[in-house]
Amino acid sequence: MAKYVIIGGVAGGATAAARLRRLDEQAEIIMFERGQYISYANCGLPYYIGDTIKEREKLLVQTPESFKARLNVDVRVLQEVMKINREAKTVEIQNHKTGESYVESYDKLIVSPGAEPVRPPIPGISHPSIFTLRNVHDTDKIKTYCNERKPRRAVVIGAGFIGLEMAENLHALGMDVTIVEMANQVMAPLDYEMAAEVHQHLKTKNVEFYLKDGVNAFEKVDDHVKVVLQSGREIETELVILSIGVRPETKLVKEAGLELAENGGIKVNEYLQTNDEHVYALGDAIAFPHPITGKYVNTYLAGPANKQGRIVADNVVMGNTRVYKGAIATAIAKVFDITVASTGLAAKALKKEGIDYISSIIHGSSHAGYYPGAMPYTLKILFQPKTGKLYGAQMIGYDGVDKRIDLIATVLMKNGTIYDLQEIEHAYAPPYSSAKDPVNQAGFVAENILTDRLKVMNWRDVSNMDSRNICLLDVRTPEEHELGHIEGSLNVEVDKIRERLDEIPRDKKIIVYCGVGIRGYFACRILTQNGFTDVYNLSGGYKTYEHTTS
Amino acid sequence: MAKYVIIGGVAGGATAAARLRRLDEQAEIIMFERGQYISYANCGLPYYIGDTIKEREKLLVQTPESFKARLNVDVRVLQEVMKINREAKTVEIQNHKTGESYVESYDKLIVSPGAEPVRPPIPGISHPSIFTLRNVHDTDKIKTYCNERKPRRAVVIGAGFIGLEMAENLHALGMDVTIVEMANQVMAPLDYEMAAEVHQHLKTKNVEFYLKDGVNAFEKVDDHVKVVLQSGREIETELVILSIGVRPETKLVKEAGLELAENGGIKVNEYLQTNDEHVYALGDAIAFPHPITGKYVNTYLAGPANKQGRIVADNVVMGNTRVYKGAIATAIAKVFDITVASTGLAAKALKKEGIDYISSIIHGSSHAGYYPGAMPYTLKILFQPKTGKLYGAQMIGYDGVDKRIDLIATVLMKNGTIYDLQEIEHAYAPPYSSAKDPVNQAGFVAENILTDRLKVMNWRDVSNMDSRNICLLDVRTPEEHELGHIEGSLNVEVDKIRERLDEIPRDKKIIVYCGVGIRGYFACRILTQNGFTDVYNLSGGYKTYEHTTS
Ligand SMILES: Cc1cc2nc3c(=O)[nH]c(=O)nc-3n(C[C@H](O)[C@H](O)[C@H](O)COP(=O)(O)OP(=O)(O)OC[C@H]3O[C@@H](n4cnc5c(N)ncnc54)[C@H](O)[C@@H]3O)c2cc1C
Ligand SMILES: Cc1cc2nc3c(=O)[nH]c(=O)nc-3n(C[C@H](O)[C@H](O)[C@H](O)COP(=O)(O)OP(=O)(O)OC[C@H]3O[C@@H](n4cnc5c(N)ncnc54)[C@H](O)[C@@H]3O)c2cc1C
Ligand SMILES: CC(C)(COP(=O)(O)OP(=O)(O)OC[C@H]1O[C@@H](n2cnc3c(N)ncnc32)[C@H](O)[C@@H]1OP(=O)(O)O)[C@@H](O)C(=O)NCCC(=O)NCCS
Ligand SMILES: CC(C)(COP(=O)(O)OP(=O)(O)OC[C@H]1O[C@@H](n2cnc3c(N)ncnc32)[C@H](O)[C@@H]1OP(=O)(O)O)[C@@H](O)C(=O)NCCC(=O)NCCS
Repeated sequence: MAKYVIIGGVAGGATAAARLRRLDEQAEIIMFERGQYISYANCGLPYYIGDTIKEREKLLVQTPESFKARLNVDVRVLQEVMKINREAKTVEIQNHKTGESYVESYDKLIVSPGAEPVRPPIPGISHPSIFTLRNVHDTDKIKTYCNERKPRRAVVIGAGFIGLEMAENLHALGMDVTIVEMANQVMAPLDYEMAAEVHQHLKTKNVEFYLKDGVNAFEKVDDHVKVVLQSGREIETELVILSIGVRPETKLVKEAGLELAENGGIKVNEYLQTNDEHVYALGDAIAFPHPITGKYVNTYLAGPANKQGRIVADNVVMGNTRVYKGAIATAIAKVFDITVASTGLAAKALKKEGIDYISSIIHGSSHAGYYPGAMPYTLKILFQPKTGKLYGAQMIGYDGVDKRIDLIATVLMKNGTIYDLQEIEHAYAPPYSSAKDPVNQAGFVAENILTDRLKVMNWRDVSNMDSRNICLLDVRTPEEHELGHIEGSLNVEVDKIRERLDEIPRDKKIIVYCGVGIRGYFACRILTQNGFTDVYNLSGGYKTYEHTTS
Repeated sequence: MAKYVIIGGVAGGATAAARLRRLDEQAEIIMFERGQYISYANCGLPYYIGDTIKEREKLLVQTPESFKARLNVDVRVLQEVMKINREAKTVEIQNHKTGESYVESYDKLIVSPGAEPVRPPIPGISHPSIFTLRNVHDTDKIKTYCNERKPRRAVVIGAGFIGLEMAENLHALGMDVTIVEMANQVMAPLDYEMAAEVHQHLKTKNVEFYLKDGVNAFEKVDDHVKVVLQSGREIETELVILSIGVRPETKLVKEAGLELAENGGIKVNEYLQTNDEHVYALGDAIAFPHPITGKYVNTYLAGPANKQGRIVADNVVMGNTRVYKGAIATAIAKVFDITVASTGLAAKALKKEGIDYISSIIHGSSHAGYYPGAMPYTLKILFQPKTGKLYGAQMIGYDGVDKRIDLIATVLMKNGTIYDLQEIEHAYAPPYSSAKDPVNQAGFVAENILTDRLKVMNWRDVSNMDSRNICLLDVRTPEEHELGHIEGSLNVEVDKIRERLDEIPRDKKIIVYCGVGIRGYFACRILTQNGFTDVYNLSGGYKTYEHTTS
């Protein structure tokens, strides 16, 4: 009878345990969890705090009792594994209920300890109104604090996915929320012009945010906290959520001499096995080669952790038969009314890696415009300049954002190209899409760029340009032009361009723009085929330009 | 200067025309449309009739004028191409406005004439209250009839996607709607147990439907129609919509000696070229090899027509450079509150083709159960019994059905397997999915079946079985069992099974079932690994069984 020991009882650990049991009814399976709860919905925690999820027990997907009854797994909560003795194949456990320590042996050890929120040694950080959020315990503390203290103001430090979810949920409780973020934008996996749309949305919700600013100190002022920023700004508040990131929980495995990657994650091979053949690791704690760069990266996401749990169990029980292929960090968040999603690498990440790329932005609507309820979206894709191999995508909109990001992620993971996007055979009826889905359109536009049928510039190129050497050509209608345009631009409506070619200078670089890019493209085609040689379309049109430069 | 002539000015034709112009600014492009309108939203027509789409002009995506202004295409509406002279490379046109006929030459001809509704010679079919729906003209007629006559009862003959959309929209106008369908189910691309869910939904909306029944005659009774069915049943009504299918418009090309496929569609090669190298064809009118069976099939869908339009234009202008890969009929419809979608081949189609397959049904919820608003779905997939290569999928639910069908279609079109479904890296946050998306779960379940870890039976096998030779084991809770169960089943709750193994007979075939299949799977694993050898899980559980047998 095999004996399997698991460290960590939530996304990775519990899933591995469940699959282990289904594969091997006879094995002894022990799952250690240092906290009080297993199998809880980490991802639901912000929504419980914000009262969107009303019942606390909904967060507890499984309990030690249900796990025992259904899966005959020996779940030991409030018991922390303090040491791994690899030679002896044992672990040392501290029982936090009794204070006792003891030793348990294993045939195979599965390590899924997760990650811990970063808490830098900022002066005043131990103030009792400052919280991090990782587990049910943290959640209970925040919830109790909110119920008892009824804070009216909150500051969220760090504007990642969890930070923004918390901002929304605290806002839902009626608090005035301020976000502080070191970077010049929210949501690091997005490129700036995409994040700019999120900024605009946050403004409409009266959420204040300070970018390019960090915390110098927290100060106690009466019964609340003063957050002192590096810029000198001071914000008084009753509640601080610190969500500036997490780092893998690797103390235990490091002490056991298991190999770590440079960034600190547990290094595993394609079978999710550490450098000790009897020890497998998964979840937030591991580092695995990124499918595009090949470099070891951490992925702090529940989907991959769950999928890895099944792979690990298979490899533990059946020998190394199942290969993990890595993750491209496909992620999504609801930010108030909008949905923000990304997959693969952003332009800034590609730049950092020294990978050549082209990017393209389109705007459109979630389904056929003639059917009620169509909502705008913005979709940016990044691809290889010759082959069109996909590198990444980012999308913001209202509905159907998840659908398109999932489709692009699926194509990307299969080493697909922008041509594959064109061919996606989506299910179309007016309530769901258009006859050409946004993913198809993204592929069409990208092809035009790749094949030099269309030269594009992005908002940054254009805003950095010396306007004397170029002709900015606004091909929207005079009415649209009137409502707002890039300074110094000439307005020749696309539908009139063939008649008005004379008015457009032939000796200048021409940068065409329209609302979102499509009429600009049409105009570029007309100009190029009428002998204009230096013609560019502004990617994403005036919409992206305005978002980013306003 | 090249001269391109296009027959048909809607999905395929107009898209080809637009791309032609973008590729070739100098070409002469003439688009003939025998009707009054081009570029209209066929797919929106039912919703305009039902007042969901309020403004008629929204249906007209482009007009001859806008097409001229933006694309410089010579659009000739109310002009029908009556003859193609391939040797002379000319077409003969009848101008319905003036009654004149004339001839136009072409370098390349693009044929996208669509399909026409089938109108069998049933006695009384010319009654003025009987309509088919294909274009704006038909729509205007139905709309005017509804406005003027204010019918209170309607009969829809034929329960395909369009028939059901019409049923919903007439119902929205306050009519009592009856559906008549020859088959034993609605929506032919679905297998029976999936259609059964649609039947149940229609019942909740008080839509009457008669299956396995056809129309023998229409009779005039006072100012309304009597629909006389083959069963003898008679339905009096004020409005009949005939939606029993379409057939490709091929009279013209047939007379021109262009090759047709057996089913009547225009035969084209992978460049969408007919057997005349100067004539390309696309849209509803063509037949193209099915990616799975290799047999020529028609696809009556707007997505493929639009995509083909772009391919045809490319091949016409640049020579045969772009290959069309066929379509697997990925389709979707909103049917009242539910969404119904399918892709690839259904079980019945596979059977007909003599292709071995396995099918598997799962039920679950559209997103994490702990986040509000999660709605149930049913997902059936079909795959090759050895390799797991995907053959098709059908899904019914509320939200996110489109997402999952698109993902499966994308994997399928790349010759993907159920293992690819497992690996789909979906964007997960509680409002959008679960840590394991339904498509992942479908892949997991399928693998268990493929690897013989789980043997399954479907509702039909079970309902045909002699209950004396088997043990039907209900592993739900006693409370669930009490509320309804398959007759003669033994109830041993999954969580108690390990303690109650003695109660389960070892000499009988055991068919386990639970609510949806998952607890049944767990139970099967326990039993099999405890020496029970002949154990099956009921695919889709009691939910599917009840739907189909009630
Ligand atoms: C607030 C929040 C929201 C999130 N939202 C999303 C989302 O929307 N989408 C998404 O994909 N991901 C989300 N995540 C991330 C997701 O929850 C994690 O990626 C996932 O839980 C990682 O699984 P894991 O098994 O590696 O770690 P965890 O699920 O954190 O489990 C690790 C467990 O191991 C225990 N442990 C650690 N060391 C020991 C030890 N020595 N002995 C015993 N037990 C130990 C810990 O107490 C912990 O309970 C969110 C996370 C948080 C905190
Ligand atoms: C009510 C309805 C709802 C639909 N809903 C959906 C849906 O939700 N999703 C989906 O994917 N598909 C849907 N479809 C199908 C979709 O509209 C078609 O697949 C698509 O329009 C086919 O494009 P086509 O260019 O082949 O034909 P069409 O778009 O029909 O265009 C053909 C045109 O050619 C013209 N024509 C024919 N012969 C001649 C001639 N000799 N001379 C000049 N003109 C000629 C016709 O008048 C017609 O206007 C729906 C169709 C209808 C009728
Ligand atoms: C609760 C938990 C232990 C469940 O693990 P699990 O049993 O592997 O997962 P599920 O309940 O989704 O069940 C999946 C299994 O049921 C099977 N299954 C699913 N639907 C089925 C059906 N209709 N018929 C038959 N089998 C089915 C799958 O094949 C899979 O089994 P397999 O892995 O042996 O192939 C684990 O997911 C967990 O702890 N979750 C909460 C923590 C977490 O993930 N947090 C982060 C996200 S908020
Ligand atoms: C209206 C109609 C003529 C439009 O044809 P179209 O111009 O090819 O299609 P779109 O308006 O979607 O535009 C797509 C083009 O714009 C480009 N484009 C889209 N968004 C863009 C952007 N943001 N920036 C630059 N280019 C963009 C695409 O690349 C594509 O050009 P390409 O084919 O040259 O690569 C045609 O689709 C039609 O008649 N539709 C109605 C009929 C119909 O389809 N009915 C059935 C469904 S209801």
